[in-house]
Amino acid sequence: MKKYSVAAIPGDGIGNEVVPEGQKVMEAAARLGGFSFDWTHYDWSCERFAKTGAMMPEDGLDQIRNKDAIYLGAVGFPGVPDHVSLWGLLIPIRRGFHQYVNLRPVKLLKGIESPLKGREAGSIDFYVVRENNEGEYSSIGGRLYDGSPDELVMQQSIFTRRGCDRVMRYAFELAKTRKKHVTSATKSNGISHTMPYWDERFAAISTEYPGFKTDQFHIDILTAHFVRNPDWFDVVVASNLFGDILSDLGPAVVGSIGIAAGANINPEKDYPSMFEPVHGSAPDIAGKGLADPIGQIWSGAMMLRHLGEEAAARAVEDAIADVLARGEALTPDLGGKANTRELADAITAAL
Amino acid sequence: MKKYSVAAIPGDGIGNEVVPEGQKVMEAAARLGGFSFDWTHYDWSCERFAKTGAMMPEDGLDQIRNKDAIYLGAVGFPGVPDHVSLWGLLIPIRRGFHQYVNLRPVKLLKGIESPLKGREAGSIDFYVVRENNEGEYSSIGGRLYDGSPDELVMQQSIFTRRGCDRVMRYAFELAKTRKKHVTSATKSNGISHTMPYWDERFAAISTEYPGFKTDQFHIDILTAHFVRNPDWFDVVVASNLFGDILSDLGPAVVGSIGIAAGANINPEKDYPSMFEPVHGSAPDIAGKGLADPIGQIWSGAMMLRHLGEEAAARAVEDAIADVLARGEALTPDLGGKANTRELADAITAAL
Ligand SMILES: CC(C)[C@H](C(=O)O)[C@@H](O)C(=O)O
Ligand SMILES: CC(C)[C@H](C(=O)O)[C@@H](O)C(=O)O
Repeated sequence: MKKYSVAAIPGDGIGNEVVPEGQKVMEAAARLGGFSFDWTHYDWSCERFAKTGAMMPEDGLDQIRNKDAIYLGAVGFPGVPDHVSLWGLLIPIRRGFHQYVNLRPVKLLKGIESPLKGREAGSIDFYVVRENNEGEYSSIGGRLYDGSPDELVMQQSIFTRRGCDRVMRYAFELAKTRKKHVTSATKSNGISHTMPYWDERFAAISTEYPGFKTDQFHIDILTAHFVRNPDWFDVVVASNLFGDILSDLGPAVVGSIGIAAGANINPEKDYPSMFEPVHGSAPDIAGKGLADPIGQIWSGAMMLRHLGEEAAARAVEDAIADVLARGEALTPDLGGKANTRELADAITAAL
Repeated sequence: MKKYSVAAIPGDGIGNEVVPEGQKVMEAAARLGGFSFDWTHYDWSCERFAKTGAMMPEDGLDQIRNKDAIYLGAVGFPGVPDHVSLWGLLIPIRRGFHQYVNLRPVKLLKGIESPLKGREAGSIDFYVVRENNEGEYSSIGGRLYDGSPDELVMQQSIFTRRGCDRVMRYAFELAKTRKKHVTSATKSNGISHTMPYWDERFAAISTEYPGFKTDQFHIDILTAHFVRNPDWFDVVVASNLFGDILSDLGPAVVGSIGIAAGANINPEKDYPSMFEPVHGSAPDIAGKGLADPIGQIWSGAMMLRHLGEEAAARAVEDAIADVLARGEALTPDLGGKANTRELADAITAAL
């Protein structure tokens, strides 16, 4: 029997509630699929930071380097500045393990209310493929004339050919399994060095995929199209920052921001990939059993797919769709009265 | 009689159709208001670029430096790369004349169909105040290892204290005339130098305005809130790039992206300010009389306000709202059959 060794990092807030529920669903999927999990739990979090001054141990990456995957809850808690908690945990894992693709599905599901008029379940179905390692999220920069009226701050964006090409190829490979349509997010009319380069690489990689439909939009009008024409898209490829924006906006237009799933992928499998919901640690509702576990469970389905367990991944996705369509056992954010465990149990039962 | 000297720059595509119509409405407003305009026409455009190799003459800024305002159509045409046309005209004017505020209203108007469910005219009404001179749109950067697999491109974002403070103060002053609520767009959890600095300045400027409600959101979730909770906002202040995105997304959620207005303002009036619609030059429909002139006319209303003609500004805005609410004489984009001139004439008549 295949056994997958997975690092579970609940992190902060509702991460502690949804990760264990996600693990239960993963266990159920494994039983049905004839494989198993070996979980190791890590307490890396803002709580740990408060006690020890570090989000994770110095050799943190080494501790999990040989895992098959990482199953992350959410990071962030009041009192610890976001840039501390994230640059102390999330971002080092994304970079250290070359998880250069951040993949997020945008899908209008039955039973989920979209804020948009006149859209049917199934009519919106695309992926945002975000560059996850470089670009606008560089730590290079600094401050001049501190504390004076002349003070200024600089920050470098860095786009490498390797970084652009590999995430674009991933997008085309994904589109190959779908409608063969790739849309690039750019801003080459305003951002005059990095974005024209991004366009250049997109044009170059496009030639490797003849017969594909390609288009590109500046990020400003692209966000407008996400609202006006979300049915236009199949695979949208974007830089780190633009992908970050689009992969929140996309779920928002289909009404699923609270349940959206995400994957940080190292496609070559040289390093473990990491699976985490889009939502945050939601300190305001933490510890009350109110958290919606679907984002965590759906991210688990993406983990199963990455591990090669496609049938199990589908089964979990179908179980989620099923429970949502029936509208039973939903948490308050979805208009129901169930708690975190009850919703997760309903999904397990639907499996 | 007061006389305002204005540079009219129709630019490209439909700019050539909507600017003359806008001028006619401005003339009508002036007659009613007891002031007048002295227009000077400039052919600065991609067409000029094709003929002469420059979007505008070398001494272009000097030619219009002493105008009271600039009334711009749209810039950009196929064959001239966007970054050439824009860095050759739009951006030099914004920077050369210290138009450090880009102001765009987001308003759900009667007669305009919003893509969002269940929103009433009047229930969404806010301004995006965008930093318009620095930030992510810097021309500083370059390329290393050209043409090789190691190729990389860098671009600097630069935020100065002066640049942040003045646009934030403008936002607070605007909010003072409204609901005293200012929202800041940030991304300090991911962009680790410039954005924490932006937050720092926002906190500092906030203390100058006691009694105001302030909040801040990371740009990713903020775009989601524009879709889910557009009624939350009064004045949203943002960096150059984030403001660019939000001021397209905002009009998109209220269904008015084709008619949205914009102003590039030098609040101190040391230099002329520039008024231009949000829409582009729309080469696909140019020359056919199909262009909707409302964005241009609405931008004219913002020009009137900036010139101190508040009553005339209101009258034009009311006339636009009136024609839209009646639903007569609309252009095809608004579901009607009128042409550019007929819609502009209807607005003049409503004046
Ligand atoms: C055309 C482009 C450079 C410009 C910008 O990004 O500033 C436009 O999108 C705008 O918002 O005025
Ligand atoms: C928390 C933050 C640093 C992060 C990001 O911007 O990458 C988050 O928004 C995400 O999308 O995973």
